[in-house]
Order: sequence, then C-alpha cells, then structure tokens
Amino acid sequence: MYIYTACFGSFVFNEHFKLKEKILFSKDEILKNFELIEQGKQTEAEKMLSVKYKVEKIDTQHAKFHAVLEFLRDYKKEFFDANLLISKNKIKNSVNEDLLIIQTIDNLAEIKKASNLLSKRLGEWYSYYFPELIEQINDNETFARLVSSKSKEELMKELNIKDSIGSHLEKDHLEPILNLAEQINSLSRLRQEHEKYLESLMNSYCKNLSYLAGYLIGGKLLSQAGSLKRLVLFPSSTIQLLGAEKALFRHMKTGARPPKYGMLMHHPFVQNAKKDEKGKAARALADKISIAVKMDYFKGEFIAPRLKKELEEKFK
Amino acid sequence: MYIYTACFGSFVFNEHFKLKEKILFSKDEILKNFELIEQGKQTEAEKMLSVKYKVEKIDTQHAKFHAVLEFLRDYKKEFFDANLLISKNKIKNSVNEDLLIIQTIDNLAEIKKASNLLSKRLGEWYSYYFPELIEQINDNETFARLVSSKSKEELMKELNIKDSIGSHLEKDHLEPILNLAEQINSLSRLRQEHEKYLESLMNSYCKNLSYLAGYLIGGKLLSQAGSLKRLVLFPSSTIQLLGAEKALFRHMKTGARPPKYGMLMHHPFVQNAKKDEKGKAARALADKISIAVKMDYFKGEFIAPRLKKELEEKFK
Repeated sequence: MYIYTACFGSFVFNEHFKLKEKILFSKDEILKNFELIEQGKQTEAEKMLSVKYKVEKIDTQHAKFHAVLEFLRDYKKEFFDANLLISKNKIKNSVNEDLLIIQTIDNLAEIKKASNLLSKRLGEWYSYYFPELIEQINDNETFARLVSSKSKEELMKELNIKDSIGSHLEKDHLEPILNLAEQINSLSRLRQEHEKYLESLMNSYCKNLSYLAGYLIGGKLLSQAGSLKRLVLFPSSTIQLLGAEKALFRHMKTGARPPKYGMLMHHPFVQNAKKDEKGKAARALADKISIAVKMDYFKGEFIAPRLKKELEEKFK
Repeated sequence: MYIYTACFGSFVFNEHFKLKEKILFSKDEILKNFELIEQGKQTEAEKMLSVKYKVEKIDTQHAKFHAVLEFLRDYKKEFFDANLLISKNKIKNSVNEDLLIIQTIDNLAEIKKASNLLSKRLGEWYSYYFPELIEQINDNETFARLVSSKSKEELMKELNIKDSIGSHLEKDHLEPILNLAEQINSLSRLRQEHEKYLESLMNSYCKNLSYLAGYLIGGKLLSQAGSLKRLVLFPSSTIQLLGAEKALFRHMKTGARPPKYGMLMHHPFVQNAKKDEKGKAARALADKISIAVKMDYFKGEFIAPRLKKELEEKFK
C-alpha cells in the first residue's frame, strides 16, 4: 500500500491505486501541514495512517507517482483552494525587515528630492523680498526654518545686513511664500522621524552593521545589496565599492582609475583619514563590516564595538 | 550759457564750460528727479536755474556734450552713488504681478511633482499592509487621505473588500507610513492655498483673461508668454498653440499633422466640443482670449462675460 500527502490531505492507496482511506485537512491544518511538508517532516495525518497501515511513501520522485496524479484530478477544487491559501499566506509573511529598510532608505532619498525641489523655488521666490538672505544661508532646511520663523527685520539685525534691495511685499503676497517654507519644515520633520524609524529598524535587525557603518550608510549598503542575506554573501571588496558601480564600470571599460570606495566615502572613518590613506581606510572598514554583517545574519553576538576599536587602533 | 542735468544734479556752464552754478540732489531727490528726467520733464532745479539764467539745454545728442562729459569726470563718486541708488530702486520695484503669477504657476507644478513622488512611494509601502486599496483608488490625494484617516478594517468594510493578502504590520512599522500619507495631505492643502492665491492674483491683475480661460489655464498662458504685455503682443493663433511647441516644431520639421491646440486643450469649452469641432473651438476661444488680455493690459472694462456668451452662442 502507498501513502501520499498533498497540500490538502493525506491518502492511502492499495496496490491498484484504489483509495483506501483519506484525511482532508481543515483550513488551519493546511498551513500548518504545509510547513511540515516543506521541512520534509511527517504530518499528524501521515503518522496516524502509517500506524494503521503498512505503507510505502510516494513522492514526486517515485516511479508510480503518475498514478497519484491521475487520482488527484478529481480533487482540482481542493487543490486550487489549498494552493491559494498557501500563496496568500506566503505573501502575507513576505514583508520582512529587509523590505522595510529598503522602503525607508528609498523614501528618505525621495523626501530629500521633494524638499530640494520646493527649496529651490522658495529661494527664488523669497529673494524677491529679501535676496540677501540666500547669499548667507546655504543649507535648504536652515533657510526654510529662518524664513518661516523670523521676520525680515529680525533676520537683517541678526545677520548684520544693513540694507536690502528686496521689494516690499504685502502680507497677501508674502503668506504663500511662508506657507511654502512651512511645508519644507514639515518635510524636514518627516525626514527626522523616518531616520529615527530607520535607526530602530537597523538596531534591532543588524545591530553590528548599524553600529559600525552607521544606520544610514548601513541601510544604504543593505538596500544596494537587496537584503542582509545577499550582503553577507558579498566579499568585502564588493562592500568597499558598493555605490561606486558607475566608476567601477568606467574603470573596466576605459581603463580609467579604479574607484577606492563607494558609499563608505561618507563614513567619518574614511572622511577623517589622511588623503593618501582614504582607500586603505575604506578597505579596512569594509573588512570589518563584512564580519559585522555575518554576525548579524547568523544572530551572533554584538561585537561591533570591538571591531571599531581594532580599526581605530590600526589607523592611529 | 548751457544747462545740463545729470542723475545727481543740475549744472549751469558759461560759454567756455566753466561752472557757473550747481544744484546737487539729495538722496530723496535723486529718485524723484530721475523719474522726471526719464519722462522728459524739467526738474525743479532746472526750472529754478532757467529762471535765473538765460540757458540752452544740453543733452547727450548736443554737439557740445563732450565738454560736459569732460567736466563730469570730477564727479565720479556722486555719479556712481546716484546710479547705484537708482538701480537698487529699480530692482526693488521690479517685482510685479507677472513675476508673482509665474512663480505661483511654476510652484504649483513643483508641488504636484513632489506629491507624485511621495505618493508613488506611499502606494508601494502601504501595499505591504493592504494591497487591495490601491487597486480601487486611482487618485493620489484621495489615496493618501483614506490611508491617513481610516483604519484598514474601516476601509475594507466601506469598499466591500472581504479579505486582504496584506501583511500584519505592528504600530511601529505602520506609523512612518501614515506620517508619509499625512505629508501628502499637507502638500494637497498647500496646493489648494496656492491655487486660491493664484486665483486672487489673476482676478485682480487680468480679470478678463481669468474669467474666460480660468485662472489656472490663464496663468499658464501668461507664464508661457513671460508677461501679460508679451501675451498681448501675441496673435490669437499663437495663443491657440501655446503649450504645443513640441508638436508645432515636429510639424514644421517633419511635416507631421499640425497641432490644433496647446494649453487650451484642458479648457472645458474645448473639452466639451464635438470631436471634429475641437480645433475650431480652440481657435474661437483663442480669438476671445486675445481680446480679453488686451482689455486687461490697457485697463479696460470687464467684458469677459459677454465674450463668453458670444462663444457659447456660436457653438450651440
């Protein structure tokens, strides 16, 4: 006698593949049993039937599997429903930290883009009123904050600007400009909130990476790789150059000088290195990051502080 | 004897171009006098000196003007200061309705761009949680409003969605998404405020155009032309095609079919015309707009309702 377990039930057949006994799964059992089947374990139903009959197990590799397939044709609907349930459940559980981190990283880039777009307009528009301010304030967020929180007179006094060639604008004309500035402030606040969220995500999901690379650079590395798992598979030389793909391919194509670092360029450890040691610093940092992500992926200890210390000592 | 008035003062010379008497202007007088000079009128100082002496006026066209120039060399600083003052004043007064309308039109386009950017992200991110919603709601602003104001359960009930394959997200993971939606709401509100501002600008500056074309399309026409003055100089056939430059040049270059309308395409009058009469409707509308902007520029009466009525009767 043979036993076969499909996603929707277990079946015992005699030698001629006539059905001897069947146990169909309930909705709840389908998901639970499917997990067991995927892991290659016996389901409860199989255990029960194996105790009752002397059975040989049939799976998709078995020579007589075609007979099972023939039999299953009568169970199209059950098969379809169970598959749908399993697929839906898989989708439901597909959202993981990797995806959330990547969304947050991409979103931060877009918030910045939107903020820059509106800031450029604010600079041009507000300069009808007070063109001297933009000459002194380079940072978009600071500019918007000053514009929306202080009057022209206050700003002139604070920044020691004696005279302005800006036009006088009535309240009606000034208000839309100030509203635009307030919107940019609001985008700044959103950016800060999302950075905090990213930080907490990174610290719980890959603490070592986050500590060593910083949550922003760490998140970008993960996002570039596609997942923590893929990042773990990268050699440290790849990590060193992540984000410098353009320069790398230019190097390979035209023989231009190869890039020394990608995303890691913005890391304080590389930024603070001496000019002729930046490449070396990036390589050493990538080495340690490569260790850190492995610790994170395999749920190892929190060793990042030690790694950081080693780095710092090496480059003292 | 000769008299010459520069931007910083009036001077009377004898036959040998020795200075007889001078009146230098104060700061306030410089601006006032400069306006009179530009309009070809006599300044107070000139009048006074003309009464006192029997003088011939010298201007830049006069045969003996070189002698004046020679003399003015001693007044470099006064000349420079007065010019600076006049230039600053000109800049100060250069902000006019044209510029404010153009800024507002451009700004509205950018707010839309920023909102679309963030909305695309919101759609993707929120769909981890409730992918069925974006299939039912096409409009970005509506989507963000629903997401931020109602729970998944409420939305499922309202839209009659029985089951969701979305993942369960904890409050910590949901919050950043809702904050993003709130930001998009805030951008919608800003857009509304700025549209109201544009409407009031258009209605006070070019009431006829605004009434006939609508404040948004009217504003875009003005922005495309660069100013109301330039729009007045355009023939109505140009107004008809404003915004269709690409298609027009393609027509001229490759002989493709010429465009029938540009920005006016979005006008309800053209939209509601029969398919084979759209071009005709756009031409008639452009004719009337061409009249409307002339009335606006030359501060004429409010005749737009009559123009509109004529149009409607023609196409009944």
